[in-house]
Amino acid sequence: MFVTFEGIEGSGKSSVLNAVQKHLEEQGHSILRTLEPGGSRIGQELRKLLLSMNSTDLTGESELFLYLADRAQHVATVIRPALEEGKIVLSDRYADSTVAYQGYGRGLDPRQLHSFNDVAVSGLWPDLTLLLDLPAEVGLGRAVARNMKEQKCDSEGRFEAESLSFHSTVREGYLTLAALHNNRYRIVDATQPLDKVIEDCIEILEAKLRGEDTPLPQL
Amino acid sequence: MFVTFEGIEGSGKSSVLNAVQKHLEEQGHSILRTLEPGGSRIGQELRKLLLSMNSTDLTGESELFLYLADRAQHVATVIRPALEEGKIVLSDRYADSTVAYQGYGRGLDPRQLHSFNDVAVSGLWPDLTLLLDLPAEVGLGRAVARNMKEQKCDSEGRFEAESLSFHSTVREGYLTLAALHNNRYRIVDATQPLDKVIEDCIEILEAKLRGEDTPLPQL
Repeated sequence: MFVTFEGIEGSGKSSVLNAVQKHLEEQGHSILRTLEPGGSRIGQELRKLLLSMNSTDLTGESELFLYLADRAQHVATVIRPALEEGKIVLSDRYADSTVAYQGYGRGLDPRQLHSFNDVAVSGLWPDLTLLLDLPAEVGLGRAVARNMKEQKCDSEGRFEAESLSFHSTVREGYLTLAALHNNRYRIVDATQPLDKVIEDCIEILEAKLRGEDTPLPQL
Repeated sequence: MFVTFEGIEGSGKSSVLNAVQKHLEEQGHSILRTLEPGGSRIGQELRKLLLSMNSTDLTGESELFLYLADRAQHVATVIRPALEEGKIVLSDRYADSTVAYQGYGRGLDPRQLHSFNDVAVSGLWPDLTLLLDLPAEVGLGRAVARNMKEQKCDSEGRFEAESLSFHSTVREGYLTLAALHNNRYRIVDATQPLDKVIEDCIEILEAKLRGEDTPLPQL
């Protein structure tokens, strides 16, 4: 099973993924936890370029193709081999991030991006996508506080430095994607306390593993 | 005017470009000499990844997107600004390299690659493309000799290490592209002595600058 976690900066993906991974491993599942950008060896080089504040001259098109390069490498060398070994793969971001950020956020054509993603993922779409949804002003506030605490403002701050309206547009893009692909998307209210967000995610995942459907209330 | 030089490894692009640049500068033209991959600041990072023998696990799709990222950045931050300043831009490789190498060479769909290139170049196609054409066995022999002399086998040898049949297919791809885009392509016989190759290139360029057409004998 291939599960992706999507959401804007500060939506809590890392914390939720930590807890979900721990829970599934305690249940005896074999898990591969990964992320984009940077899930593969070559992807780690690309992650530095993509998230660095030094990359201010990176054009929208170049950024797009770097994410696609990272993704193609991630799918072929990391995700697909793990799925073939029978692992559950949990990825922090995947193809939908490109449509949300470069499409809705930066104004590139979402349908064209979908066809580019198709080449990058070569047919491998997630079985389940958990969208951790919250207003952009809440997410950005959390992300800035976290980065100050971890002192990583300089190395990975390029997206946090975008405007509030950019992040609001990205959030709306995600909600549009969730509506378009409602067979695999589930929306979790990420303004709830972290424990409740984790509980919701685990409930959806376990139902999926049992082969049941879990129509959550859409926001 | 935007002029690109294409051809397989060992076709003599660098030597020809040196001489052509010198000639045009002596005529009083302002020249920007550039190359792919690596024509922009970020592109230089990508060039290391793309040409390094350490990148053996790079997939065909990932390689493709890295070239496109390099190109988008190159067009936006280097080529287009130079053209707007009235310079003649001479580029060692451009969009056709992707179709020849990743399309014909690696088997990705050439028409799809053309649509990807369209996004990367955002409408900026060359006014003139000089194809330095020669049989793959001759080109590869020269490239290997040069690399041994310059001791750069380890750092930039990934394409030279491909098989002879790969390079033959790339050459045929170039000849197909020249036939498809015969309005901007001119083929130069690169098996001739270097001085004669340079002379042919300069003759075509000067005619183009005078606004004349130069139907060269196609090979």
